[in-house]
Amino acid sequence: MRRMNIDTVFRLRLSYQPGQLARVAQVIGEEKGLIGELYIVRFGEDHTIRDVTVETEDEEQTSRIESRLRNLSGVEVLSISDAVFDRHQGGKIHSQSRIPLENVSDLRKAYTPGVARVSLAIEKNPMLAYKYTTLGNSVGIFTNGTRVLGLGDIGPVPSLPVMEGKAVLYDKFVGISATPILLSTKNVDTFVETVVQVSSSFGAIHLEDIRSPDCYQIEDELIRRLGKPVMHDDQHGTAVAALAALINAAKMAHLSLENATVGQIGLGAAGSAIARLLMAYGVKRMYVSDKNEEAVSWLESLGAHRASLDDIMKTCDIVIAATGRPGLIRADQVRKGQILFALSNPSPEIEPRVAVAAGASFASDGKSINNALAFPGIFKGALQSRSRLISNEMKIAAAIAIAQMAEEGEIVPDPLNPKVHQEVTKAVFEAANQQGLSGTATL
Amino acid sequence: MRRMNIDTVFRLRLSYQPGQLARVAQVIGEEKGLIGELYIVRFGEDHTIRDVTVETEDEEQTSRIESRLRNLSGVEVLSISDAVFDRHQGGKIHSQSRIPLENVSDLRKAYTPGVARVSLAIEKNPMLAYKYTTLGNSVGIFTNGTRVLGLGDIGPVPSLPVMEGKAVLYDKFVGISATPILLSTKNVDTFVETVVQVSSSFGAIHLEDIRSPDCYQIEDELIRRLGKPVMHDDQHGTAVAALAALINAAKMAHLSLENATVGQIGLGAAGSAIARLLMAYGVKRMYVSDKNEEAVSWLESLGAHRASLDDIMKTCDIVIAATGRPGLIRADQVRKGQILFALSNPSPEIEPRVAVAAGASFASDGKSINNALAFPGIFKGALQSRSRLISNEMKIAAAIAIAQMAEEGEIVPDPLNPKVHQEVTKAVFEAANQQGLSGTATL
Repeated sequence: MRRMNIDTVFRLRLSYQPGQLARVAQVIGEEKGLIGELYIVRFGEDHTIRDVTVETEDEEQTSRIESRLRNLSGVEVLSISDAVFDRHQGGKIHSQSRIPLENVSDLRKAYTPGVARVSLAIEKNPMLAYKYTTLGNSVGIFTNGTRVLGLGDIGPVPSLPVMEGKAVLYDKFVGISATPILLSTKNVDTFVETVVQVSSSFGAIHLEDIRSPDCYQIEDELIRRLGKPVMHDDQHGTAVAALAALINAAKMAHLSLENATVGQIGLGAAGSAIARLLMAYGVKRMYVSDKNEEAVSWLESLGAHRASLDDIMKTCDIVIAATGRPGLIRADQVRKGQILFALSNPSPEIEPRVAVAAGASFASDGKSINNALAFPGIFKGALQSRSRLISNEMKIAAAIAIAQMAEEGEIVPDPLNPKVHQEVTKAVFEAANQQGLSGTATL
Repeated sequence: MRRMNIDTVFRLRLSYQPGQLARVAQVIGEEKGLIGELYIVRFGEDHTIRDVTVETEDEEQTSRIESRLRNLSGVEVLSISDAVFDRHQGGKIHSQSRIPLENVSDLRKAYTPGVARVSLAIEKNPMLAYKYTTLGNSVGIFTNGTRVLGLGDIGPVPSLPVMEGKAVLYDKFVGISATPILLSTKNVDTFVETVVQVSSSFGAIHLEDIRSPDCYQIEDELIRRLGKPVMHDDQHGTAVAALAALINAAKMAHLSLENATVGQIGLGAAGSAIARLLMAYGVKRMYVSDKNEEAVSWLESLGAHRASLDDIMKTCDIVIAATGRPGLIRADQVRKGQILFALSNPSPEIEPRVAVAAGASFASDGKSINNALAFPGIFKGALQSRSRLISNEMKIAAAIAIAQMAEEGEIVPDPLNPKVHQEVTKAVFEAANQQGLSGTATL
């Protein structure tokens, strides 16, 4: 069974006497539930109604807590709801008007007859579309749902909540208008043709949760054919976040990342993108390992060296694992002083505390490599600069900006800190400028 | 030169003395400009700064007003801006988060890890997507820009301001989340395939501004292939609004619409849809005229009778013209007591006042037939009922609801009255219910 975190809201009617809440908390604690938010819904004459959010690992645990609570005297369970599903009711995004529509004058500006002049102006000078429509600030999030989170190929419609989640982050972090577009095909050519067909609808194209190797071919082809930013987030968002963490981890360990020996175990979408970005950043000795011969050959052709997992563990100063295989790395394989990132989710290749106990100078799992740190600012900076693409230089600038925003002693900053996304945006914008990419986008 | 209405905002610094505003108003009036909004921006020691909105017919007229204002003593023109273009800056819609994202708990609900459970629930029971994503309340507005307003084939990107305008109306009138999707093809098959490919992204498909006859084939094919509401607004939105107006006009003239002799001159997308909807409504004697033989044969096969323009004018109680040919109908062709709708925009086949002077009992031009009265409520009602299609019965229910909302003496209600859209929604929802269409939609 897949492990998950369930937030359940118990609405409780507690008789008004000392120690009642303590008894509730005790029962929840005994069943190993974690108490989250505690809201008072209403104060009655002789009772209080409270919403108590409890985090559990599975539904059985939730049921056990429920029956324990029902058995408490002076406690009545009024309702039980799932906080996550509650939050998803009706969807998480809405295409909203940015302008008033109160009177005829508003209507005549937003719609006919006024709108005709804007359309004609754009027909005459198409680049005005970036100014007078959402194009300058919009991203289409395209997926076919073939590799969603750790869930695999669940198909397009079930992936929609994830895509809406990305759109929420775009809106909240950088004010981008993002729209999920679900494709009902697993054929690479059909995917590409469809995106090309509708690409005029958006200022930039975010590719998400597409299985590999399809994701490489789709991204390459779209970058070749479209004159606007295209990025597969599972590759490059993750790589940028990983590079940021590695920059800080190397600094803490007084290592030069460029001159270190770095090993990448696992060359899926994320792993291969990390290895490629590290080489672009300046890492000179990059070792890679994967059972997929094609992936290894590709990375070799880009300057990496082929190695076994064993050799990488023996020789590398820094090791990144992204294999999807929990427990792949044994404690006795860890080299003293090594920096270790075990990124597989939800269970890493080696638990960070085990790695540190085995002599690693620093170890982390996938929780710190959050691409939500990267993609919003990368796309915002790319859109602001009107660059026709997202270059390695722009990605590296994003990683450096993220690294610099981490607090003392941390390797990555808090994604909820708005300053992080502002700094990433600025860095990406400036990198595009310096490369002469500004204003090169087409429609 | 195309006639248009330009709203220009003059920011003026007026010295503080009696009669200054009167002089400004006089100059604008002499140049035949219409004064709109008048805002005070700032009161100074010895002056006032005001934004004066002036409506003109072309840019030359605006320039003349500008130079007259610049010559007035005590008046300084600080800036001139175009109110419509100002309103369009940055686009008119934004895909906004519907949920808070303030803390880690919010993030874990909206995105990983919480979202995974919602995706799995939808994988298991796909119809839950209507509940836990935007699907249940979203419309994709698809166009290739081949027939935009009265502007013709201006292409997809220049049509975007019009599509965003539709999305604004969807949001403001019925709270639907609508997204413009621009297609870069004029090929009917490619258009259809592309919409089918991305159709999972939306709860319903609104087709807009597609040239005829392509629009018929595209709509038919999509209705056949998709199990969700599909409607070409230029046809059916217009037809519903026209039927509503005709119901009221017939009532005012004490005519039975069903038993009247009705003539449709011009069988383009709007005209043919009007004729078809009138027959579905119960009009028994429907006469049609068009130079396009194919269009006439099609309507004949549906029960209409072929007639010449002359014959229609001579014999019909009610005549609707939608030909795009200003002045097509001469005053001496008007029959006494006739009801006449001359819908071509911006200049009708016969001016209503000319028609009335020539003996028409009622005459109107295209301004009263506003599809903004129809499409928001039609799609909202269809989405709420989860109908797999928009039936004639649902369209007719919408028209009757619109007709009933008109105030005494008017043939159509004000589209800015929110009650209109609520009533249309309710009527369409109930019609779907009565037909057993509720809950028949697929994903």
